[in-house]
Amino acid sequence: MKILVINCGSSSLKYQLRDMNNETVMATGLVERIGGEIGRIAHTSRPDGDSPAKRVDELPIADHTEALKLMTDRLLDGVIDSLGEIDAIGHRVVQGGESFSHPVLVDDAVVETIRANIPLAPLHESNTIGIEQARKLFGDVPNVTVFDTEFHLTMPPHAYMYPLPMELYDDLKIRKYGFHGTSHKFVSRAAAEHLGKKPEEVNLITLHLGNGCSMDAVEKGKCVDTTMGLTPLAGLMMGSRCGDIDPAIVPFLAKNKSLSLDEIDALMNHQSGLLGICGMNDMRDVHQAREQGDENAQLAFEMFAYRAKKTVGSFLAVLGTVDALVFTAGVGENDDHLRAKVCEGLAPLGIHIDTEKNAVREPGIREIHAAGSPVKILIVPTNEELEIARSTMAVVNEAAA
Amino acid sequence: MKILVINCGSSSLKYQLRDMNNETVMATGLVERIGGEIGRIAHTSRPDGDSPAKRVDELPIADHTEALKLMTDRLLDGVIDSLGEIDAIGHRVVQGGESFSHPVLVDDAVVETIRANIPLAPLHESNTIGIEQARKLFGDVPNVTVFDTEFHLTMPPHAYMYPLPMELYDDLKIRKYGFHGTSHKFVSRAAAEHLGKKPEEVNLITLHLGNGCSMDAVEKGKCVDTTMGLTPLAGLMMGSRCGDIDPAIVPFLAKNKSLSLDEIDALMNHQSGLLGICGMNDMRDVHQAREQGDENAQLAFEMFAYRAKKTVGSFLAVLGTVDALVFTAGVGENDDHLRAKVCEGLAPLGIHIDTEKNAVREPGIREIHAAGSPVKILIVPTNEELEIARSTMAVVNEAAA
Repeated sequence: MKILVINCGSSSLKYQLRDMNNETVMATGLVERIGGEIGRIAHTSRPDGDSPAKRVDELPIADHTEALKLMTDRLLDGVIDSLGEIDAIGHRVVQGGESFSHPVLVDDAVVETIRANIPLAPLHESNTIGIEQARKLFGDVPNVTVFDTEFHLTMPPHAYMYPLPMELYDDLKIRKYGFHGTSHKFVSRAAAEHLGKKPEEVNLITLHLGNGCSMDAVEKGKCVDTTMGLTPLAGLMMGSRCGDIDPAIVPFLAKNKSLSLDEIDALMNHQSGLLGICGMNDMRDVHQAREQGDENAQLAFEMFAYRAKKTVGSFLAVLGTVDALVFTAGVGENDDHLRAKVCEGLAPLGIHIDTEKNAVREPGIREIHAAGSPVKILIVPTNEELEIARSTMAVVNEAAA
Repeated sequence: MKILVINCGSSSLKYQLRDMNNETVMATGLVERIGGEIGRIAHTSRPDGDSPAKRVDELPIADHTEALKLMTDRLLDGVIDSLGEIDAIGHRVVQGGESFSHPVLVDDAVVETIRANIPLAPLHESNTIGIEQARKLFGDVPNVTVFDTEFHLTMPPHAYMYPLPMELYDDLKIRKYGFHGTSHKFVSRAAAEHLGKKPEEVNLITLHLGNGCSMDAVEKGKCVDTTMGLTPLAGLMMGSRCGDIDPAIVPFLAKNKSLSLDEIDALMNHQSGLLGICGMNDMRDVHQAREQGDENAQLAFEMFAYRAKKTVGSFLAVLGTVDALVFTAGVGENDDHLRAKVCEGLAPLGIHIDTEKNAVREPGIREIHAAGSPVKILIVPTNEELEIARSTMAVVNEAAA
């Protein structure tokens, strides 16, 4: 079975074609600056094979329809012979609201329901456009939506409700949804498997630390709390997002800096986090600057780790006993300094990192806790596309059965 | 030495006269609805004595000057013979900014500096009015300011900085200040003394849970983190304040509910918290409603406790080892249901509550942990007025020395 995974952003399109017989990647690509003056498509065939073929083109790309057309052109240029070879398409959708706790086969009603959630995630209208265009372009090929929120729908009300007037939940569905769910689900399943247990036999704290950052408390396979909220701004400090701050700062800024709400929204999402503190949003640059004595870079690093460490503590309180911390995503998988800093001082809570193991760079799942540490510490590379492809295959197979 | 403690709110004035030779309260009073159509002054002489005398009057009270005049009238009516008997006045000031890490003797420069902090706490302009009027009314009597923020100025930058653009700190001093500092200081000192240790020998988590709620991580006598932020809105869920929420909710509400920023500010401060979830902001009413099967009251209780419990976990991670949790203020001192719920499930982290001890109602400091609990659990009644009186006396004595 060949499955195409599509992730439409507001001006981008990521895709990956997988042969699910052996889960290999047949092709992968990224279309950027859709609607801009000059767009860009980078396409790679057989990226994990012996002779990957990469092709990059720059050209105007008017909209997502054109982007999808470019994608199919590249796929038909040596990857597959006809679009009919594609058995199903899996779409990443950011916001499923309270409607979707599982991946679903797309029909008109599903598209309508996703559309109804757009007020909750206005920037992700592009998700629905991707789905609608794919339905047109691929005819009878089944489309499946996999929601970034669905793993979090198991949270209890005391975790997902905000202490705001109840009618804001009743009328507008203002609550904590959480994002990166596909990643948290994938790594929590993989971590359980690595520990030789079923998901329902372990408690985990999963740390997805990339440019966006979130953390999940996973109890017996189910998410019981997460750091992101109504939007992906909340929770941890990130590359350019502030995470949780005193909410009164928003009106304070409007009053004292004469900023509009859109400007404050942009400030919190795009000019804050590591970038706001030290002018760099990539942790590798932050480390380089720290080594050269940049005090703001040092502060940014310490703040980032401190907030993650505090959240580890809060999720320990939520779960009581924890089998493992699970680090994933760009920073989580590759940054030993950051992992060490997050775990610093947590030995009294049963979290002992092994400095040497932590410093080793290797692919695959690794254990980096000290021998005898009550809480294990794992690095589990995330793979959201694979998780989406697997979910898509499962839905399609179930529908066919 | 007789010390008058004054706490000016925007439309209220609390006062207490203490004889510091034995720390007894000579008189206490509350002036309310200052500037309103009909004001109210409730005055009690010798409140802790055998025959306390209470007098309540309702009358228009135009401003804080009139309120202070009413206060002195009551004091001169049987409590003291002349204002000259008052040796010093201690003023509670909410926001000391970064300028005040200790109580100070008031002079013109101090008043100017406090005035300069008003943008950080606009509602508390009344603090400065109280100071200025007291200086006029009491002539040569020394005035001392005690700041609600000063106990928190020992926080390290990684704890007090927000992950926002650095210029917001440089230009506007947007950072975490924390409030209830006088209470956290008082109970942490008292808890250390109860444990037979010096403040610098213990790590404590202090939970000030009243109508306003905040929590401190106190390491060797010094505050290293707190839950309130730039304003007293941040952190825990409170009686009518939401505490930390996804900050993107503010622009979301402006857009989707067409609310002004002042309306959103009022919503978060006065219509949220327990009140927002179940319509009651007094935890005693919440319990009564829970017992009658009110599901929203049950949810409000669970949310309140859950957020406090998560913060206990995060401060455990900050401190590593903790000698004691310290519950204080109205809810913290009197609500055994809430204390039990906060500690529920924390035994794996070394926090074992004793259900029977927790249920006993007694005055004074009490231990409510189970025998052998690695982390002790204390109830320590707070006394902000006494702390202010003591600080005031210390400053006056030092100035005279």
